[in-house]
Amino acid sequence: IIELGTPLLYREGIRVAAEIRNLFPHATLLADMKIMDAGEEEAKIAFDAGCDYVTVLGVTQDRTIQGVVAAAKRHGGQVVVDMMQVGDVVERGHQLLAMGCDYLCIHTAFDQQAVETPLATLKRLRKGMPDAALAVAGGVGLPTIDSIMALKPTIVVVGGAITQAADPAAVTTRLRDRMMITP
Amino acid sequence: IIELGTPLLYREGIRVAAEIRNLFPHATLLADMKIMDAGEEEAKIAFDAGCDYVTVLGVTQDRTIQGVVAAAKRHGGQVVVDMMQVGDVVERGHQLLAMGCDYLCIHTAFDQQAVETPLATLKRLRKGMPDAALAVAGGVGLPTIDSIMALKPTIVVVGGAITQAADPAAVTTRLRDRMMITP
Repeated sequence: IIELGTPLLYREGIRVAAEIRNLFPHATLLADMKIMDAGEEEAKIAFDAGCDYVTVLGVTQDRTIQGVVAAAKRHGGQVVVDMMQVGDVVERGHQLLAMGCDYLCIHTAFDQQAVETPLATLKRLRKGMPDAALAVAGGVGLPTIDSIMALKPTIVVVGGAITQAADPAAVTTRLRDRMMITP
Repeated sequence: IIELGTPLLYREGIRVAAEIRNLFPHATLLADMKIMDAGEEEAKIAFDAGCDYVTVLGVTQDRTIQGVVAAAKRHGGQVVVDMMQVGDVVERGHQLLAMGCDYLCIHTAFDQQAVETPLATLKRLRKGMPDAALAVAGGVGLPTIDSIMALKPTIVVVGGAITQAADPAAVTTRLRDRMMITP
């Protein structure tokens, strides 16, 4: 999955999706729009541009979530919920899956990565929802990948650990290997 | 103030700011980015593009708010906080102003406008913060403008009431007149 990050989308607009699609015709594209309102309209922007996944904020109102899910169903897309700032992730997680969301993403904000990791929250959510499709993002790298994989996320989001690495390809290969090996 | 809405920014990217600036050299431009993370980086995108105001979500973590405020101070810009989904608007409002935010915006989500108006929340916030600079958005139009102006907001955000009107210029003039008349 190639993520089109929020700052990239604000800088360039959704047309970047077509450019990335040209470079990688078979990749899965995720638009990290962090939708907070106008769910149906904003999700449609991503799906119309050829994105496969879109993100919505778990803290937003149910009607917005429902709008994003409706757009996804119409376009054959998928909905990833960013659980940033959600108070009770298990309670809200059950509501979100019941509304038709596909993945719950435990996300340590970029601005919080100096002071926390997503591990404790991921653990709590996995315990409360043993079968849910979970994603994890925020400070994921070689030092943390094994303890994260033990909690069986479906998607692991890696950013800075690759883009800031001296040898990004080597780190990516090592991370993929660890993801395959961990049971 | 001309607002660059979230869907417009996602469609076109921040370069729309320069296009609007060319059309209206002396207008104040607001980028409704609804920032949730990477506060300093995302706010910088708006200010570098010539926007004067940027929005951040009140539900986000304090570090993100602080990053947005830091970017605003460096660029001589202003910070509007969208209070959507904030539990206790008065308590959070005090924190946000203490962190250096300029305006608190009571915002009824587009997806909620069929079932609520911003009036009750605006009333609660004005009572708790008699001197704060408030903004109000969501379903504001001729039927609601007088009761809203009575609560002395500094900024009133009008969207659909103008853009969906048969005669947008006439509605705008009538709304402006009512904003000037109301004490």
